[in-house]
Amino acid sequence: MKLTILGCYAATPRTFTNPTSQILDIKNRLFLIDCGEGTQVQLRKNKIKFSKINHVFISHLHGDHFFGLIGLISTFSLLGRNTDLHIHGPKGIKEIIMLQLRLSNSWTNYDLFFHELESTESQIIYEDDKVIVKTIPLKHRVYTNGFLFQEKIGERKLNIEAVQGFKIDSCYFQNIRNGKDILLDSGQIVENHKLSFDPVAAKSYAFCSDTSYNESIIKIIENVDVLYHESTFLQSEESLASKTLHSTAKEAATIALKANVKQLILGHYSTRYESIDLFKEEAQTIFPNVLLADDGKSFDL
Amino acid sequence: MKLTILGCYAATPRTFTNPTSQILDIKNRLFLIDCGEGTQVQLRKNKIKFSKINHVFISHLHGDHFFGLIGLISTFSLLGRNTDLHIHGPKGIKEIIMLQLRLSNSWTNYDLFFHELESTESQIIYEDDKVIVKTIPLKHRVYTNGFLFQEKIGERKLNIEAVQGFKIDSCYFQNIRNGKDILLDSGQIVENHKLSFDPVAAKSYAFCSDTSYNESIIKIIENVDVLYHESTFLQSEESLASKTLHSTAKEAATIALKANVKQLILGHYSTRYESIDLFKEEAQTIFPNVLLADDGKSFDL
Repeated sequence: MKLTILGCYAATPRTFTNPTSQILDIKNRLFLIDCGEGTQVQLRKNKIKFSKINHVFISHLHGDHFFGLIGLISTFSLLGRNTDLHIHGPKGIKEIIMLQLRLSNSWTNYDLFFHELESTESQIIYEDDKVIVKTIPLKHRVYTNGFLFQEKIGERKLNIEAVQGFKIDSCYFQNIRNGKDILLDSGQIVENHKLSFDPVAAKSYAFCSDTSYNESIIKIIENVDVLYHESTFLQSEESLASKTLHSTAKEAATIALKANVKQLILGHYSTRYESIDLFKEEAQTIFPNVLLADDGKSFDL
Repeated sequence: MKLTILGCYAATPRTFTNPTSQILDIKNRLFLIDCGEGTQVQLRKNKIKFSKINHVFISHLHGDHFFGLIGLISTFSLLGRNTDLHIHGPKGIKEIIMLQLRLSNSWTNYDLFFHELESTESQIIYEDDKVIVKTIPLKHRVYTNGFLFQEKIGERKLNIEAVQGFKIDSCYFQNIRNGKDILLDSGQIVENHKLSFDPVAAKSYAFCSDTSYNESIIKIIENVDVLYHESTFLQSEESLASKTLHSTAKEAATIALKANVKQLILGHYSTRYESIDLFKEEAQTIFPNVLLADDGKSFDL
């Protein structure tokens, strides 16, 4: 799992900072999370292959999280895309995109699917053989979801030495990978754990932005490997955070602590502060494992 | 009159090129012409004062000419703008902007006026004491207008020496600037041209993008000082230009020649060519005074 931050600053795009957008690469599937203005240029700068993005997840309909989507959809067309594109986002996103395509008389030459979200309960919105994606209902000024990406537990790894020692035929290998015990010709049963190793632990990533401090998300994101949680403000602007339904770095860290996550990544910074290091310092007074998102930064999870 | 090119490349925003947008500064009024994705960042990079933009002119509803408008309108709000903003553009532009503001629950804290265009005849769409703006109906795949900006002829300049020589009281100065002759106490009439100089010649600028080769615009743009005419392609792609209702550099130059303009600026380049110098070379086989637009370039007209 690899996370690439395309943009992680609040409000408006600026000369050197970009609004929210990130690419999560899970086993070579690229998921685009949010799509602020300029996302397509950030994709180019970070050398992300446009054609590998098949699913876009939009947290909410504030401009700094979706104004780049119509441009990306149009550019996909100009690049001759022909594979399906799925947009998961709040109700209304379809109307916004379709109106602009209709008025510009420019239809896509690929199939565009909208999966509009309205539920205020966590739900599975995507699943394949490797990954499950669930919504994380957040508290913000408009209807907002975070997203929880969970790898599925993979196959067990063959212990080649043991398998050869028992002279087991290769036609049984898939059964071993699937966790089955093996009955030898001699009548002896060999337990699976003697023939295979545990699969690589399945990783999980939770994206939570934008949101006020909200303990009701803890049960959904409990024990995740990596939590990206917005921290628009510092505690010195706590009342502003509370008024605008954003979080402070300390609040983000408190959620990380209570949800027992392994790693916290902060982002969605207001540009009012001199240095983003201040966010890390504040969060670490509560929770030690804090990293700072920044535009163009990648994290191997 | 000063023209600043924020973006002048066709199709999609790229790492180092931007879609169409330009700022025309006429006597300290800033007019924004088109607003592709990333325009607000280009405004920042070029140190254009956001608050001085009160009128935006959108040529047509293809994404590379207006996808940045909703972001700019939102940013104006975040920056605390309180002066009116006027958007002049094709019918539909209001619905696109209002839908997105409504769904993001973010209203502007300034008054936003839409002046939607539907006419296929040239018309005056803006006028104040210094400037007139007229549409230039263009031929493209959707309803499109170029825009003609004409300075009004200013006041005559006082000839201080002559005025002092005739001992004319300062209360007559405005009359002299307005072109009136003066009756002296002696009964002598002094003709205005002896008391004042001709005003600075009024400049004009025509923006024509996107459009196919279209001789019907010649009568509207005749004798302008500067013509910006799209040249998406070279003659080698003439059939593609004709199919997509774009122009070649040679066609742009032919319009410049037939309209007897003083200066041609080329832009809206396809990124398929190795160098934009090729556009200038081709145009200059027809018309000598050719300049190349480029992102971040300014022209004192």
